[in-house]
Amino acid sequence: MHSQVGVVSLIQRYQRIRQQSLALCRSLSAEDMTAQSMPDASPAKWHLAHTTWFFETFLLLERGHKPRNPDYQFLFNSYYHSKGAQYRRPLRGLITRPGVAEIIDYRTHVDAAVCRLLEEDDPQINQLVETGLHHEMQHQELMLTDILHLFSLNPLLSAIFESGGETGASGSCPASTWREMNEQLAEVGRDRGDGFVYDCECPRHKIWLTPFSIQRRLVTNAEWLEFIEDGGYGDPLLWLSDGWSCKEKNNWHAPAYWQQKEGCWMQYGLDGLQVLQADAPVCHVSYYEAQAYARWASKRLPREHELEVIARAQKIDGNFLESDHWRPRAVQDAGANQLYGDVWEWTGSAFQAYPGFKAEQGALAEYNGKFMCNQLVLRGGSCVTPIEQLRSSYRNFFYPWQRWQFTGLRLARDD
Amino acid sequence: MHSQVGVVSLIQRYQRIRQQSLALCRSLSAEDMTAQSMPDASPAKWHLAHTTWFFETFLLLERGHKPRNPDYQFLFNSYYHSKGAQYRRPLRGLITRPGVAEIIDYRTHVDAAVCRLLEEDDPQINQLVETGLHHEMQHQELMLTDILHLFSLNPLLSAIFESGGETGASGSCPASTWREMNEQLAEVGRDRGDGFVYDCECPRHKIWLTPFSIQRRLVTNAEWLEFIEDGGYGDPLLWLSDGWSCKEKNNWHAPAYWQQKEGCWMQYGLDGLQVLQADAPVCHVSYYEAQAYARWASKRLPREHELEVIARAQKIDGNFLESDHWRPRAVQDAGANQLYGDVWEWTGSAFQAYPGFKAEQGALAEYNGKFMCNQLVLRGGSCVTPIEQLRSSYRNFFYPWQRWQFTGLRLARDD
Amino acid sequence: MHSQVGVVSLIQRYQRIRQQSLALCRSLSAEDMTAQSMPDASPAKWHLAHTTWFFETFLLLERGHKPRNPDYQFLFNSYYHSKGAQYRRPLRGLITRPGVAEIIDYRTHVDAAVCRLLEEDDPQINQLVETGLHHEMQHQELMLTDILHLFSLNPLLSAIFESGGETGASGSCPASTWREMNEQLAEVGRDRGDGFVYDCECPRHKIWLTPFSIQRRLVTNAEWLEFIEDGGYGDPLLWLSDGWSCKEKNNWHAPAYWQQKEGCWMQYGLDGLQVLQADAPVCHVSYYEAQAYARWASKRLPREHELEVIARAQKIDGNFLESDHWRPRAVQDAGANQLYGDVWEWTGSAFQAYPGFKAEQGALAEYNGKFMCNQLVLRGGSCVTPIEQLRSSYRNFFYPWQRWQFTGLRLARDD
Amino acid sequence: MHSQVGVVSLIQRYQRIRQQSLALCRSLSAEDMTAQSMPDASPAKWHLAHTTWFFETFLLLERGHKPRNPDYQFLFNSYYHSKGAQYRRPLRGLITRPGVAEIIDYRTHVDAAVCRLLEEDDPQINQLVETGLHHEMQHQELMLTDILHLFSLNPLLSAIFESGGETGASGSCPASTWREMNEQLAEVGRDRGDGFVYDCECPRHKIWLTPFSIQRRLVTNAEWLEFIEDGGYGDPLLWLSDGWSCKEKNNWHAPAYWQQKEGCWMQYGLDGLQVLQADAPVCHVSYYEAQAYARWASKRLPREHELEVIARAQKIDGNFLESDHWRPRAVQDAGANQLYGDVWEWTGSAFQAYPGFKAEQGALAEYNGKFMCNQLVLRGGSCVTPIEQLRSSYRNFFYPWQRWQFTGLRLARDD
Repeated sequence: MHSQVGVVSLIQRYQRIRQQSLALCRSLSAEDMTAQSMPDASPAKWHLAHTTWFFETFLLLERGHKPRNPDYQFLFNSYYHSKGAQYRRPLRGLITRPGVAEIIDYRTHVDAAVCRLLEEDDPQINQLVETGLHHEMQHQELMLTDILHLFSLNPLLSAIFESGGETGASGSCPASTWREMNEQLAEVGRDRGDGFVYDCECPRHKIWLTPFSIQRRLVTNAEWLEFIEDGGYGDPLLWLSDGWSCKEKNNWHAPAYWQQKEGCWMQYGLDGLQVLQADAPVCHVSYYEAQAYARWASKRLPREHELEVIARAQKIDGNFLESDHWRPRAVQDAGANQLYGDVWEWTGSAFQAYPGFKAEQGALAEYNGKFMCNQLVLRGGSCVTPIEQLRSSYRNFFYPWQRWQFTGLRLARDD
Repeated sequence: MHSQVGVVSLIQRYQRIRQQSLALCRSLSAEDMTAQSMPDASPAKWHLAHTTWFFETFLLLERGHKPRNPDYQFLFNSYYHSKGAQYRRPLRGLITRPGVAEIIDYRTHVDAAVCRLLEEDDPQINQLVETGLHHEMQHQELMLTDILHLFSLNPLLSAIFESGGETGASGSCPASTWREMNEQLAEVGRDRGDGFVYDCECPRHKIWLTPFSIQRRLVTNAEWLEFIEDGGYGDPLLWLSDGWSCKEKNNWHAPAYWQQKEGCWMQYGLDGLQVLQADAPVCHVSYYEAQAYARWASKRLPREHELEVIARAQKIDGNFLESDHWRPRAVQDAGANQLYGDVWEWTGSAFQAYPGFKAEQGALAEYNGKFMCNQLVLRGGSCVTPIEQLRSSYRNFFYPWQRWQFTGLRLARDD
Repeated sequence: MHSQVGVVSLIQRYQRIRQQSLALCRSLSAEDMTAQSMPDASPAKWHLAHTTWFFETFLLLERGHKPRNPDYQFLFNSYYHSKGAQYRRPLRGLITRPGVAEIIDYRTHVDAAVCRLLEEDDPQINQLVETGLHHEMQHQELMLTDILHLFSLNPLLSAIFESGGETGASGSCPASTWREMNEQLAEVGRDRGDGFVYDCECPRHKIWLTPFSIQRRLVTNAEWLEFIEDGGYGDPLLWLSDGWSCKEKNNWHAPAYWQQKEGCWMQYGLDGLQVLQADAPVCHVSYYEAQAYARWASKRLPREHELEVIARAQKIDGNFLESDHWRPRAVQDAGANQLYGDVWEWTGSAFQAYPGFKAEQGALAEYNGKFMCNQLVLRGGSCVTPIEQLRSSYRNFFYPWQRWQFTGLRLARDD
Repeated sequence: MHSQVGVVSLIQRYQRIRQQSLALCRSLSAEDMTAQSMPDASPAKWHLAHTTWFFETFLLLERGHKPRNPDYQFLFNSYYHSKGAQYRRPLRGLITRPGVAEIIDYRTHVDAAVCRLLEEDDPQINQLVETGLHHEMQHQELMLTDILHLFSLNPLLSAIFESGGETGASGSCPASTWREMNEQLAEVGRDRGDGFVYDCECPRHKIWLTPFSIQRRLVTNAEWLEFIEDGGYGDPLLWLSDGWSCKEKNNWHAPAYWQQKEGCWMQYGLDGLQVLQADAPVCHVSYYEAQAYARWASKRLPREHELEVIARAQKIDGNFLESDHWRPRAVQDAGANQLYGDVWEWTGSAFQAYPGFKAEQGALAEYNGKFMCNQLVLRGGSCVTPIEQLRSSYRNFFYPWQRWQFTGLRLARDD
């Protein structure tokens, strides 16, 4: 990247990705962008401000710039204790001021300063900007899932996007087949310096894989309906103990955003309320539900590295944010395996440090390491993940009860 | 009112009062009008919609009109079970759609239909409209207190209005003196037909008053500071048992919206953060705090009818919404007694039915009667109460722990 | 009482009442006496210790005695801030030590010292002992209701007592008739010195009663069943707003301790699980339920002084603790009015200070005054109230959601 | 075991282990055995009944015996959905009946029937009894930790046992040294049939270990004090995000059962309140605290298999329940490594299924598998673990916030 071409290209990329965050809000009102539907979610406008705070704080303030507004340092810091106090997370929906217009000004102001810095073509700056862009892309996805959750609680059930992509023809979904893998000493993870990578993906290290098989496609809505109709949500013997309590407390009877309307299953999504598509991958299920489904099927969830060794050999391609499809899509042909895109796949692996893990230096040490408890790894990206963000070693992580992300599953078994 | 003049006058009054609701939002953004800061409060925009729903539901739909939007019947019904299900109260801040613009359209649409109906000069319609206007004025006050609460949680602490009224000169506040009253058989409350009146103020009935004295002015900030400095917030023997628990749980050390800044007490209000004015009436205290103060002073809170018999003999005048002052104001001269305006005065009387109480007929039966438990009566109106709304028999009511309204006190004693 | 006879009689009374507390535990194991079923209830053994602490603290320690055990001062203080810190109320079931045997020793020790003091025939001592005995009798009733609640949560549903009294013949209950009362200036309450009296009953004072009628007997189980069968628990228009929320949250469909067994209504009580007796007074209903019942019947609950003026003219007689009946009993003949005994009657009156109220001096100031908020007055005593404790001016008080006491109702109306 | 000697030996072992449960309660009153101090804990008496229920349900009822009391099936089932409904866990302290005496009768009754069955020397019966005895031993430890927690909340802070073991001489604790391990393909876990083993320890399988070092002894109280004095409990950068929230909410400033008394650190334990012994292993710390300590020391917690491969080569010996010492003990000489006994060691490994894991058949499938989420593995046993229960492959598991068990840690590092 240390060339004039590199500089131009990074500035352009910066502008494109930053612009994309705004473009995703194109059909939202300032009111839509202000509300917070639950503590796990944040207002769209807060995402726009926080990602800007990220560049301002880690790049500009470190280089002597003055903060645009000292209150923003408090309001838009997410969880970085090393950067001072934070406005209480469950109250983010109360930040009616600054308004969207002022936040866009804030973005413009910071973007100009960042682009000026980028002209220096300083490797350290470039690397921080790269991190900031990956952070921005993560928040693009979060912003969409948060908006979806918010809109799902409004009886109007508005469509946020018009689906521009082709739908997988219903009924064309091939039966699931199994790919068998022998036991092996494998290498997983990635080393720093080998392209952009988060600390939690490092270092590359050896693991021993025992023999296993894995489904060639994702579990579908039709298959999930069988689970429901077989009483899956009513049989405690299928569930983890914590899962059963959670399900009972929250009164779950189907994936999130499903509803029955005159006997017909419908699914609310970014493109509005639609008839449930039988062949599309099931989506918006918690780990608890995924695990109960797997036990019902007498199988198990894959471990994260079982997915990684297979995914690594594949081209990163699939139904991502760029598809403009806004929903997981039925598998198109028998060859496709949906290892990338459509839905984040729950794995049975706890999110924990790899052997040799070293947290990022400085303030970014808080980025991943402190979340290595109580969460499960998900792999593969979803239909609202920007494709540039994905890698075969990418580890996403959520709590087992969360289901407002685009989360689904495929099955595995021990051989 | 059954005359052409009456019709014209009611239509004009309708338009003036409805317009006032919008005018109070003049400095608010759509974002400001959407957020809900706590379950007790509602978004400004919800108030605008709900008061419109009130006219639509109780007037227009009863006369065969179609609802503007069936979803509004659900979203903007507050608590009228007889009018169907209601969107969950603590989620009102999630109603990003309809937007403010659509709600203003809704108001315009309903206003036109109501004004057409008013031309019929039908006594029943006129009476319902009268009720709707009083309801609207109640919500004007609630809207202001809710906005104040919301803004108080934002570190920017913006001013919402510029104070247009004159300030009572500091230091001029006369010492409190006592007015003595003999025992007597008095009449309180009001009968229907005697001007506009809520069901809970009726009927006029006899009560026996034992001898008492009452302070000629409200308790001031300076007096409250003495209470604080004397350890009032730390002595459980001064407090009601429930009051002490509440104070401990909420960590109260001063009235709401007070803060110390470099050793100086400041008070946030609709006109921003200001130095605490010693002579102004104390405001934003809960019943629990008011009661502890009274015990500290070896006095008690007045009973509601002690205030009523005195207030009835006075002209309704004082620091109301129309003063554009936005804060309680220090008493101006020794003659003033602040029985009207400035702050709602906590009484020691539980909000309960009068002998002979009959709830309003029909759906409006839910207006007051079902709240006759766990709440205390407040009297006199505040600096954000529209003056037209007040009567000497007017009974406001809140829970003893609530303090986001403009609530204060004066002392009484048994003689 | 200042005579040898008086001394002997007070000592004997002291011993009899103190002994009665133990006698009520005769069928309880040490384990039964240790558990606490909810924060509102206390273990039987704690009641035995706390009433002893009361005599020790207010009588013995004030006269220079050493505490039996300094830890008891902390463990068995209920809510007297003036007497130091208290063990947290919801944890009382964790006080496995001291054991029942040690607590009985504690009682014996304190009783001996008190009896020695009583021999001085000092009026101040005598009065304190009198207060302690009334306090002891209050706790006898609480102990029984707490034990009942505890046992009701155990599937064994053991009988604690065998009913020794005669049962009102079923079917003999006369229809309810109304007693009419004219408007009048009445006197209620009582003055100090006029026999034993709590501060909250004082002073005697005038009130104006508007005309009303009142039922001659209590509402029965049969009448309550009509309310249930008419959908009373399902119609929000009958309920107070707070009452409806409470009912929904707690999933109430009938009074406490009722259950249906093969289509037959049963009622658990101190004498075990019994078939519901149609003519017996309904019992274990909350104020919220009582109020909904009254609205369903187009009547209201009596005010406390309406009951007092009628009760004052009657001899205190009825189904009390001494009847050994352990349940409310059907009215025996048309003349009986059940104003005393059977069940505490919910009134529509908030528990508040009378005009001229002065709290007891010293530590006993915390006895009643600090509870004058959020609670309702109940009148008349119940089948587990010691008869000596009752007076026509006696004001019991509970929160509107509580129903583990023996609480019922009669109806009133405005004339 | 299929020999007369085997039969006799198993019956004797059965009687010895069952008797041990009672012996551990020798200084407890019936009241002590009834209370439940928190939902995580159970009353001692419930443990005695539940372990009996286990033999009755899985052994006797399966062979046609009648239940001793059908209510016991409900009251003493812990979490086996396949065996019917369960009394609500947080209410176990309300089971005052059956009393301790009846529960001992229940034990006697079931023991007699089990011993008769054992005479058949049926391998299936023998295996079930073996499982029941291991289950019994687990509950012996739980019973002690639950009693400790209960007694810790009583201001009397009674000693439950007198320490009979020798104390490690203070000051003699050697500095911690590191044992280095090379990378290797190791085998961990155990196969069925290879002695008694739980399903979650199976099957034996290969794993790849990257190079690491591990401390030769446990972290001591003295070392933990350094962490406290260095502000470890106040620095969010050391803590997991969930850990910091938990610590703040629970106001933790030191391990459980520590208190300062006149400037001196004391530790409450089964042998009462004692001066903190500097060289003894730190105990009663949560995973969250252990992890913060490790980060403060720039190290990490061991992974479970790092401990297993080392422990497997060692004789199972150390400070166990049989030592009668009741506390973790300072290391005696440089050779000792405390891999067994003293405290359960937190590992950084989530409790998850091994490759090839198959849950136990039938009702015992609920024993371990359904807890494989949100919990961490602990290794090595504690000073209150019966030594017979331990194996090098034994996996204990608790939630990261729990600290009422005898839990401590040693450090590891990547090489």
